[in-house]
Amino acid sequence: MFRTLLAVTIAGALAVTSTASYAESVATERHQVEITSLTNSLANPWGMAFLPSGDLLVTEKGGQLRRVSLDGAVSQPLAGVPEVVARSQGGLLDVAIDPNFSSNNWVYLSYSEADPDGGEGNSTAVARGKLGNNGLTQVEVIFRGAPKYKSGAHFGSRLVFAPDGHLFITLGDRYSAMADAQTLDNHHGKVVRIKPDGSVPSDNPFVDQANALPEIWSYGHRNVQGAAFHPETGELWTAEHGPKGGDEINIPQPGKNYGWPEATYGVDYDGSIISDKTHVAGTEQPHYYWVPSIAVSNMIFYTGDQFPAWKNDLLVAALKGSQVARLDLHGNRVMHEETLFEDAIEQRIRDIEQGPDGYIYLLTDDRNGQLIQIKPAK
Amino acid sequence: MFRTLLAVTIAGALAVTSTASYAESVATERHQVEITSLTNSLANPWGMAFLPSGDLLVTEKGGQLRRVSLDGAVSQPLAGVPEVVARSQGGLLDVAIDPNFSSNNWVYLSYSEADPDGGEGNSTAVARGKLGNNGLTQVEVIFRGAPKYKSGAHFGSRLVFAPDGHLFITLGDRYSAMADAQTLDNHHGKVVRIKPDGSVPSDNPFVDQANALPEIWSYGHRNVQGAAFHPETGELWTAEHGPKGGDEINIPQPGKNYGWPEATYGVDYDGSIISDKTHVAGTEQPHYYWVPSIAVSNMIFYTGDQFPAWKNDLLVAALKGSQVARLDLHGNRVMHEETLFEDAIEQRIRDIEQGPDGYIYLLTDDRNGQLIQIKPAK
Ligand SMILES: [Ca+2]
Ligand SMILES: [Ca+2]
Repeated sequence: MFRTLLAVTIAGALAVTSTASYAESVATERHQVEITSLTNSLANPWGMAFLPSGDLLVTEKGGQLRRVSLDGAVSQPLAGVPEVVARSQGGLLDVAIDPNFSSNNWVYLSYSEADPDGGEGNSTAVARGKLGNNGLTQVEVIFRGAPKYKSGAHFGSRLVFAPDGHLFITLGDRYSAMADAQTLDNHHGKVVRIKPDGSVPSDNPFVDQANALPEIWSYGHRNVQGAAFHPETGELWTAEHGPKGGDEINIPQPGKNYGWPEATYGVDYDGSIISDKTHVAGTEQPHYYWVPSIAVSNMIFYTGDQFPAWKNDLLVAALKGSQVARLDLHGNRVMHEETLFEDAIEQRIRDIEQGPDGYIYLLTDDRNGQLIQIKPAK
Repeated sequence: MFRTLLAVTIAGALAVTSTASYAESVATERHQVEITSLTNSLANPWGMAFLPSGDLLVTEKGGQLRRVSLDGAVSQPLAGVPEVVARSQGGLLDVAIDPNFSSNNWVYLSYSEADPDGGEGNSTAVARGKLGNNGLTQVEVIFRGAPKYKSGAHFGSRLVFAPDGHLFITLGDRYSAMADAQTLDNHHGKVVRIKPDGSVPSDNPFVDQANALPEIWSYGHRNVQGAAFHPETGELWTAEHGPKGGDEINIPQPGKNYGWPEATYGVDYDGSIISDKTHVAGTEQPHYYWVPSIAVSNMIFYTGDQFPAWKNDLLVAALKGSQVARLDLHGNRVMHEETLFEDAIEQRIRDIEQGPDGYIYLLTDDRNGQLIQIKPAK
């Protein structure tokens, strides 16, 4: 495990700095890896995105967007971030950069937004702004989850761009509104697909259906916080939290129903069974699931050259057990699951990304949240 | 865990009997089950098969074939069993009954057979005989693995009848002869398909290939001791031991190469890597694999009505951890793995079968080997 206190003490003896860096070499089935904490001065970071410069944009749940460099330097909060409802699971959530960022500078943020009309509800919204030296300008809201609902839970919020340029937003069922996941007149428990300017693609599955919101791509989800595109098929894969057991990987197809809360492999947190049905007609089975829950956060398909045995594998970060589940894939088929890093990382893992260097980067959910770099051991 | 000593003591107080029976109720993800040891007086049992009467035929590795009833009664050894080389992993191994047993009484046995010409080698052979009141008569050898080879290890030996009536025999690489698994002039590391009388089906994949043994169905296996037919597709599935890690489930297709020892996810018992290659052109990836090894023995597709949530799931028994791995399948896809019974059973599990009653039966590999019955808890 990370010898956090010792490492901080040593770093403190060398210099008063926020870039306490320490490394540990860890064995896995196929690769010996080195795990380095690049900084521990992020306050509950939630999402990150690499800029073409090699720096990262990192969100903190409280509402700050910061620029972080791989030497551990963390910037002051950037200006222009929308106001967020930073309470319970809500706050400033994911960040993504436009596929054409180099020419247009658009940055996208998901967050819990208060009711603009002054009601008590809130919902997941997505805004974008142009990144300059001082922060975001020309900020505009491109998506606003409906309805506004009074809950502090299950905002979903992962932002991913498809290879064809569409923006997918993964959403949650807002917990007490779980039944809404089965109806199409709201965004609860949905995966949504829009254009980067917020307009609705004409080939979305429900654009011509009455009483259905046209942004919806798939439904019957619980709380989807992981999303990535398969490097060979180009298909969207998602990870969602189950109630207690029943965390799921899905490959959401347009218009399909992924079952929640009618069908699930989990039970509720108080131990009562939400549904004793794992199979319900008209709903899709998960591609893969966990019982008990590992509390899946984000995930990536690893496509770099630094870890050849992990090529095209799905790496699923988890809050519980501070682990990354490696699903060894052959095509879409899960051949094997390996639990990575659980003895080396002590904090909940909130986000995972692959760097332009082919290394793997993790954010941990803690008041002294870390940016962690995984590279091959020398 | 089984309170073996206590249970035996209580049973002993009631009666001097070999049918010490004790039960334990165990929770699993979807079913509460009751685990009952029906007898503990089997000496290293290896294989079992249900007779139409509801009794079982059970092999003991030392060379005895016994009739066992579900009240725990164990017969004297039946006559007519071929002489076996009972040494190391060799001995009397699997038993199967003919699909038309009710009309023809054929029983099939696999075993390690000495060289009939007096050489030092041995190999896996299969004989059949007609079961009568006193044992087997009209015994004939229908398969004789080639070559005879001096080794005490990796005999394979599971016997399963395909839905179309062909007999599949799973074989091992004899450990020190592992390279033979890649050549077709021998039976080492092969799955073999014959007719019940030992003749070769004309549609076997290598019947017309020079220097290839015509019984071969698939090759590149290490030590295959589990086999079952998928209840919906009718395809053969197999389980094989990896060297140390890399236990595999495969769906052997005719004429295909499953990679051993060129490609493997395991390392040798001394810690050296057999091959650092997991992917080799011209070889098939496993359908599913385990690292570290659980030491897979036999497996079944559960098709009964007693455990509805396990319907059509693959239940893989394992020597290590005294567990049954439940692979929750959707079609051929593994969606989830659950480890069953590991805290309730202390002995290595050597065989698993489904009874005509829909219960699940296990044999444990021990001098005081048990027949264990798994049924729903009341
Ligand atoms: Ca689902
Ligand atoms: Ca193989």
